[in-house]
Amino acid sequence: MNTYKVLEIKKSVFEDNDRQADLLREELKKNKTFLLNLMSSPGSGKTTTVIRTIEALKNEMRIGVLEADIDSDVDAHTVAETGTKVIQLHTGGMCHLDADMTRQGLAGLGTEGVDFVILENVGNLVCPAEFDTGASKNVMILSIPEGDDKPLKYPLMFSIVDVLLINKMDAADYFDFDLEAVKERVKKLNPDIRVIPVSAKTGMGIDEWADWVRTEVKNWKEA
Amino acid sequence: MNTYKVLEIKKSVFEDNDRQADLLREELKKNKTFLLNLMSSPGSGKTTTVIRTIEALKNEMRIGVLEADIDSDVDAHTVAETGTKVIQLHTGGMCHLDADMTRQGLAGLGTEGVDFVILENVGNLVCPAEFDTGASKNVMILSIPEGDDKPLKYPLMFSIVDVLLINKMDAADYFDFDLEAVKERVKKLNPDIRVIPVSAKTGMGIDEWADWVRTEVKNWKEA
Repeated sequence: MNTYKVLEIKKSVFEDNDRQADLLREELKKNKTFLLNLMSSPGSGKTTTVIRTIEALKNEMRIGVLEADIDSDVDAHTVAETGTKVIQLHTGGMCHLDADMTRQGLAGLGTEGVDFVILENVGNLVCPAEFDTGASKNVMILSIPEGDDKPLKYPLMFSIVDVLLINKMDAADYFDFDLEAVKERVKKLNPDIRVIPVSAKTGMGIDEWADWVRTEVKNWKEA
Repeated sequence: MNTYKVLEIKKSVFEDNDRQADLLREELKKNKTFLLNLMSSPGSGKTTTVIRTIEALKNEMRIGVLEADIDSDVDAHTVAETGTKVIQLHTGGMCHLDADMTRQGLAGLGTEGVDFVILENVGNLVCPAEFDTGASKNVMILSIPEGDDKPLKYPLMFSIVDVLLINKMDAADYFDFDLEAVKERVKKLNPDIRVIPVSAKTGMGIDEWADWVRTEVKNWKEA
């Protein structure tokens, strides 16, 4: 049986999170570990997407996962079943991770020889957008049932991410969701954003997503 | 055309939010205005539920709506189309309302002669659970696509609400969602919680929900 550690994260003592985030990013760069910060609402399919990503890439790189949550272990348990190195981080009520908290998580996980770490942030479209975790790249998931008005309501989150995954595409026929309207809304906030429609359930779009990750991990190690 | 005001909420100066919340609740009681605090993740169907609730009850009571959001007016615009008195509150980046912020919103709306005010809180399962708004009752929505593990991951939110609406029941066949497991999980956290399955889209369950509101508004005025 696969197991996982649980780490109670301590509140950060640093006032200048941006500085801490830059320092962490530099260290990760030096150690050739690519850190992906994955954000979304609760229930958008973050954990299922993490598992699909692991399946797609586990034969070509060493992967680790940081599962952040207020106080449950549900997600680490699920990810551990894939045999991937994973640690559950408890934020003690806080609805985000900052750079120092992320550093604690990486230390708990152990990143020696790990190529690619996925940080599954706390399910929330507000606070996580406000704190740079020190990640190499930021990605968010918006799922079809949440509605196409979300870029209007949570503009900061859509502004700061490199990729937007539109998940639960398999349910697209069932909900009124205007994909083109979403693309237009997010491009207005963030012209360089890459939008990838996927279904973590059926596997649709996961190849394109895994290609993006593959290229970014490679660039991170080489540049 | 129906219009609505937009109010930029000021950050509270009070340190003891619980005291402010109790004071607000007492005033609302005296003025016979029942305040319902409605919480959920983004995209669970809060605004659609608000509109269904208005439709069910508008002929028997005077209703007002506070729409809280980080900075959009999407929801107030939608609610204003029903002809209901509504105000959009901008929280200035904050992911919750506390009692003083709610008081500012009620003052902006004007509650003279209003029987029932719905506060649609910011879409979030963490911060809103931590701040008593002064509401008469607290209600949350969990929608089918979000998954049945949410009570395990956001226990505080499920612990503090009087009613849990399980929304998007019309999509139940499409998602793996164990309603009985959710009921069991929430009753463990909150034995007195009332769970009502609804579909704000089709109207399923709205009668039972409107009955609950009707009874609570009546009790609030009489007790």
